[in-house]
Amino acid sequence: MPLKDLKTIEFGNEADFKKAFGEITKLLGKDRVSTDKDILEIHSTSSFSTHQATPDQRPQLVVYPSTTEEVSKIMSICYKHSVPVVAFGGGTSLEGHFTPTRGGVSIDFYNMGEIISILDDDLQAVVQPNVGWEELNEELANHNLFFPPDPGPGAKIGGMVGTSCSGTNAFRFGTVKDWIISLKVVLADGTVIKTRQRPMKSSAGYNLTGLFIGAEGTLGLVTEITVKLTPKPDNVSVGVFSFKTIEDSAKAVAKVVQSGIKPNAMELMDDVAMKCVNHSGETSRIWPEEQTLLFKFSGFTPRDASEQLKAVERIARAEGCTSVQLAVTPEDVDDLWAARKHALWAVQAFGGMNKRVWTTDVAVPISKLPDLVKDTRKDLDDTGLFSAVLGHVGDGNFHAIIVYEPEKIAIATAAVERMVDRAIALGGTCTGEHGVGLGKRHHLDHELGPEAVNTMRKIKLALDPKCLLNTDKVIQVDPNDKTILEAN
Amino acid sequence: MPLKDLKTIEFGNEADFKKAFGEITKLLGKDRVSTDKDILEIHSTSSFSTHQATPDQRPQLVVYPSTTEEVSKIMSICYKHSVPVVAFGGGTSLEGHFTPTRGGVSIDFYNMGEIISILDDDLQAVVQPNVGWEELNEELANHNLFFPPDPGPGAKIGGMVGTSCSGTNAFRFGTVKDWIISLKVVLADGTVIKTRQRPMKSSAGYNLTGLFIGAEGTLGLVTEITVKLTPKPDNVSVGVFSFKTIEDSAKAVAKVVQSGIKPNAMELMDDVAMKCVNHSGETSRIWPEEQTLLFKFSGFTPRDASEQLKAVERIARAEGCTSVQLAVTPEDVDDLWAARKHALWAVQAFGGMNKRVWTTDVAVPISKLPDLVKDTRKDLDDTGLFSAVLGHVGDGNFHAIIVYEPEKIAIATAAVERMVDRAIALGGTCTGEHGVGLGKRHHLDHELGPEAVNTMRKIKLALDPKCLLNTDKVIQVDPNDKTILEAN
Repeated sequence: MPLKDLKTIEFGNEADFKKAFGEITKLLGKDRVSTDKDILEIHSTSSFSTHQATPDQRPQLVVYPSTTEEVSKIMSICYKHSVPVVAFGGGTSLEGHFTPTRGGVSIDFYNMGEIISILDDDLQAVVQPNVGWEELNEELANHNLFFPPDPGPGAKIGGMVGTSCSGTNAFRFGTVKDWIISLKVVLADGTVIKTRQRPMKSSAGYNLTGLFIGAEGTLGLVTEITVKLTPKPDNVSVGVFSFKTIEDSAKAVAKVVQSGIKPNAMELMDDVAMKCVNHSGETSRIWPEEQTLLFKFSGFTPRDASEQLKAVERIARAEGCTSVQLAVTPEDVDDLWAARKHALWAVQAFGGMNKRVWTTDVAVPISKLPDLVKDTRKDLDDTGLFSAVLGHVGDGNFHAIIVYEPEKIAIATAAVERMVDRAIALGGTCTGEHGVGLGKRHHLDHELGPEAVNTMRKIKLALDPKCLLNTDKVIQVDPNDKTILEAN
Repeated sequence: MPLKDLKTIEFGNEADFKKAFGEITKLLGKDRVSTDKDILEIHSTSSFSTHQATPDQRPQLVVYPSTTEEVSKIMSICYKHSVPVVAFGGGTSLEGHFTPTRGGVSIDFYNMGEIISILDDDLQAVVQPNVGWEELNEELANHNLFFPPDPGPGAKIGGMVGTSCSGTNAFRFGTVKDWIISLKVVLADGTVIKTRQRPMKSSAGYNLTGLFIGAEGTLGLVTEITVKLTPKPDNVSVGVFSFKTIEDSAKAVAKVVQSGIKPNAMELMDDVAMKCVNHSGETSRIWPEEQTLLFKFSGFTPRDASEQLKAVERIARAEGCTSVQLAVTPEDVDDLWAARKHALWAVQAFGGMNKRVWTTDVAVPISKLPDLVKDTRKDLDDTGLFSAVLGHVGDGNFHAIIVYEPEKIAIATAAVERMVDRAIALGGTCTGEHGVGLGKRHHLDHELGPEAVNTMRKIKLALDPKCLLNTDKVIQVDPNDKTILEAN
């Protein structure tokens, strides 16, 4: 299935699209479809996406189904008339995931945001795709339960499944794929499948659940998600460790990982990121503007958590940690963590709101993290652009936020390309948790080899032979597609 | 892709097979191929498999490659001549996974049993498929590292990937899919792919690693595995809790799971299983022959482990636990755990070696475990056959071992069918960790619905259009295949 042997995708013609839009409008009623220019615009890209949509990369129709059955009918219509379809949730993805490169329909899951059930006794919940992880955890707190994956603020669980996201809790709790029991999925032709029942584990048949997670809506549309939950962590505290050099902090991370201590989270924020957070005024304290590691602990007993903290402190001091501060009240913990979660906005605000921001991530084996961090920090400094580095370093997952004037995009692009190449050369990946979308598609051949990418293409074409579902994302399926060259 | 729309698979004719065997023999040399009757027999089934091979379900050639490149060349030859291929590792699978229903070649990975590297600093190891989990852990102990998945004794990591296995450690550590970083896979036409580099997490492209795990060799042959490791658990102790009724023990399990306490393992053995273990003489103590829960704990400190134990004891006593015994010395812990791991043989030995044994598993949401356990125990008693129930109950995963005279197979079969139907009706799965093979293929439609199974068939045919790889396993791809009706 090499790309060169494939043909250009043939969608329906203008008349086919018109018929499809008419049938969908009849199905949903006029109130649940839109051709409003602003609405189409919102569904084409976001200000913080690395991929800025070209003027023709707009949906022609935005639709708001309320049920799996309606999504299925919409897909049947689009399949019949060969109309491409993109799913839209929180709109927080970073790599152009929801940009409709071929026009067609954008399915906005706005009306499918219900927590269907919380199954306390099974530590599970059933949700619709537009439930946000923050909103779910707010509700779960009343049940003393917790759903660990915590990507960017505003992300919805449907999109989180699509991008195979994670967040700060992944070091202890794993990524979103570890927290999905089962999916209801609408396939390209409208067929509805359930990938699994809801036992905690199963080895019955191919792992369809795992296949749809991270497929970015290119293999099917997720309309219902059964998630796994855990009792809410107890005795939470946060330790803030300052270091003179970023390399020292990364070495401390590697040592903690190798020691087997399992903090809930292990976050890096460099001096620039700390400065931006202080500047944002979002925390009640002023934090040292140094290379900083944030460790979150929880334990079966308070003593348990504090013993882990002491052990981490010993390791950190041996690697050059110069000061340790603690946040132990729930308010302090939430405050500090919120600052970390809003770092993107803090950095963007500090760098200048009239500029553009590029947020990107890579991940490497943990022993390679110090090299990656050191070389990338230096490389970014050399560009002269304003940037902060941070990340979920316990997983070897490292982020850069680059603020740049639009005319300097080539400098930013080149720095990101070098960062990805560096990560791949160190045995890592072009993205640890943001996904591929349009922005990182061209790295897959390099990272995995063309034969692995061909295997992905075979799966894509087996499940979506007309290439209707989020066309052009993750892997290129059209040899004549110039999407990436046209972008930016 | 409904089965009825597919055609009967057409393999090569006798001359094609002969050509293929000649080419493979030339490639490997006569010492690394075999047509010896006993060797072919060993590669057709095992005494403890639920599927006993019919006389024609034998490989025609058993081959022993030493490298990925040789496996690739063997597959190229078989692809060219349309010869079916089955992989063989430890031979410990239970559902007829390695029975060559269509003759052809059995690839025995005997010569690919090397631990290629242990990457201490990254908590990873790279192994060939015929490395056993016990052997790997023996070597890892020298590095103070640990690979948690622990299926039946003798299982090899290649096969463990194939069946998506788990074992006693899954409650705390997860199943094998949580411990695989990356796979090298030979596809049906001989193409070699690497599913991922080796960062701890990635969201780059489709999750091919996850797709090959649990595919039982039907999508590709795994020839190299990069596994994730963890520092060896410290301060291990085992608590043995006795209960009057099996339902009480299952209720205690559900309560512990819901409490959020995370023992490393939580095992059920009923009174029959305990009697068999005592009878086997494999443990140095005589254990109470009651409904028994075994909890394994480890902790960051000894106090940490003992506090968890106390909390579990409180829950267990409230659910009717009558006695608690502790194994705290490493010898006691190993001793008791070894007895649990050899329960299959202990039950078989007690039940009568001239009889056959049927080992099967299902899994349900944890709240449904008490119902499943109670009803299944009663149902098995009503059959009049000798049986023990046990399992990794922390995951809602439940096993039955049934010993029966060959002429009573219909009674055993019917009891297993009812157990599976019961699990599926409770929202569970026909197999939590043994896989589908031939033995449970017919349950998939019922468990997942025909559309999900059709989706699996699409993936199978996309990656293996000639249906050469472990034909007839997991999903039926030949409408005229009567494999299951002919069996047993």
